[in-house]
Amino acid sequence: MSTLAIIGVGLMGGSVALAARRRGVAGRIIGVDQQPAVLACACRTGLLDEGTADLAAAAEQADVLVFCTPVNLIPIQVLAAAPACRPGTLLTDVGSTKAGIVQAIQDRLPSGIAFVGSHPLAGSERQGHEHADGRLFENRLVLVTPTERTDPSAVERTVLFWQALGAAVRLMDAEEHDRAVALTSHLPHLVSSALAGIVPRELLPLTAGGFRDTTRLAGAAPALWRSIFQANLPAVLSALARFEQQIRCFRLALEEMDMAGLETLLEQGKQIRDALPRG
Amino acid sequence: MSTLAIIGVGLMGGSVALAARRRGVAGRIIGVDQQPAVLACACRTGLLDEGTADLAAAAEQADVLVFCTPVNLIPIQVLAAAPACRPGTLLTDVGSTKAGIVQAIQDRLPSGIAFVGSHPLAGSERQGHEHADGRLFENRLVLVTPTERTDPSAVERTVLFWQALGAAVRLMDAEEHDRAVALTSHLPHLVSSALAGIVPRELLPLTAGGFRDTTRLAGAAPALWRSIFQANLPAVLSALARFEQQIRCFRLALEEMDMAGLETLLEQGKQIRDALPRG
Repeated sequence: MSTLAIIGVGLMGGSVALAARRRGVAGRIIGVDQQPAVLACACRTGLLDEGTADLAAAAEQADVLVFCTPVNLIPIQVLAAAPACRPGTLLTDVGSTKAGIVQAIQDRLPSGIAFVGSHPLAGSERQGHEHADGRLFENRLVLVTPTERTDPSAVERTVLFWQALGAAVRLMDAEEHDRAVALTSHLPHLVSSALAGIVPRELLPLTAGGFRDTTRLAGAAPALWRSIFQANLPAVLSALARFEQQIRCFRLALEEMDMAGLETLLEQGKQIRDALPRG
Repeated sequence: MSTLAIIGVGLMGGSVALAARRRGVAGRIIGVDQQPAVLACACRTGLLDEGTADLAAAAEQADVLVFCTPVNLIPIQVLAAAPACRPGTLLTDVGSTKAGIVQAIQDRLPSGIAFVGSHPLAGSERQGHEHADGRLFENRLVLVTPTERTDPSAVERTVLFWQALGAAVRLMDAEEHDRAVALTSHLPHLVSSALAGIVPRELLPLTAGGFRDTTRLAGAAPALWRSIFQANLPAVLSALARFEQQIRCFRLALEEMDMAGLETLLEQGKQIRDALPRG
């Protein structure tokens, strides 16, 4: 690949750029962002070769475009960029939801231009390219969500792209993806935020590592997560209902002083947590 | 101090022993545990100088006893050890709840023997002295909960003991302590466990760092936490009610597609999380 365009030069976009640079995946990296200061800084530090606010100008030069903007903006930007792309250009993204994005773009691209949805299971609660990590994708999983109509060679190129950044890839149906990550990622975010939100500030000095870890996700950008929740509303509500039911089981066990029942619930959580592959 | 007795040679007890050893706080360390294999291993690795299953035998030799057993056992063991102690012996603990322990022991000790409740805000979801950490208490806070009738010199010795292990100390009322940690520690445990408990095993490969951190506490020992929840039931139920109310606010915002309201809730969590002192 000669030219890579990164749309949205934040933590994710910066990490894609850094990883591509480190691993020699791109000859030239163009960043597209609406904040001139971000582009100037990212060019100065060598993260980007070039920065522009003009999406079409970047699109016509790029072989691969990776959209790293909030999920509500991705379809609009993909459709805006596509007409400027040369035939054979590959478009992909890093959005945390997939079905809505894939559906909004499907059948609306010029011939010869392909979009393949991607979601790297890697990230950070931090924001900004200054926290970018060139090893963010190493040994992580990227979920790639082609449809029946996606050009197989575009899927293949997407898989090779993420593998070149050090990740493993799993192909998945977009709707199945959204239901799964509602439970494994979006719900933990919501719960982490609710947990942090109810602690009075004067008690913060009385917290330890458990609170710190459990609420880490609460530090993420609210606007970014608002758009993720909005894009995956039914699946998030269904995951939330399941969680509320489990919390009710805990409450009933406590209220009835059913300590054996409480221990069974704790054991259930431990067994699943202990089955997690080592990180 | 010449002789330190550790009652319960697990992760916490082992860490107190290691820290005391590292920092020259004790000339001799005796471990009391009901598992001979644990004592044998802890003596072989140099964690302990001596191990015994006989609490009274250890008590009569010790200058300071630190009870590191589950919270439901601490009062029984303190009252069992006290008659064997020499006058001037200091007894303290590392239990995660304080009011019940302090009340059960109060006014029931022989003259010259003092118990002062302690709770180090440090720990791990791991179990066993093989995971002990001699630096576990460094720069951490230990909450010490004397009553009006606790001998001030015993309080002073307890403070100096924890400071000698590298910790800072804050004196607190035991009931206030229990209400605070219900929100900052016991609730996060319960929530972490509920979150892990509802994820189907086949989705575990689709989790990332967020799920890992949010559910870390779910890996803790169910029997240990059962006794903590039992010992702090009203405060845990009240913290849980507050959490359920916050979760309901999230659900209503999602159901009504009130995305501005959702962002406000996320912002509330972020502001509190961001106010957390750096760890």
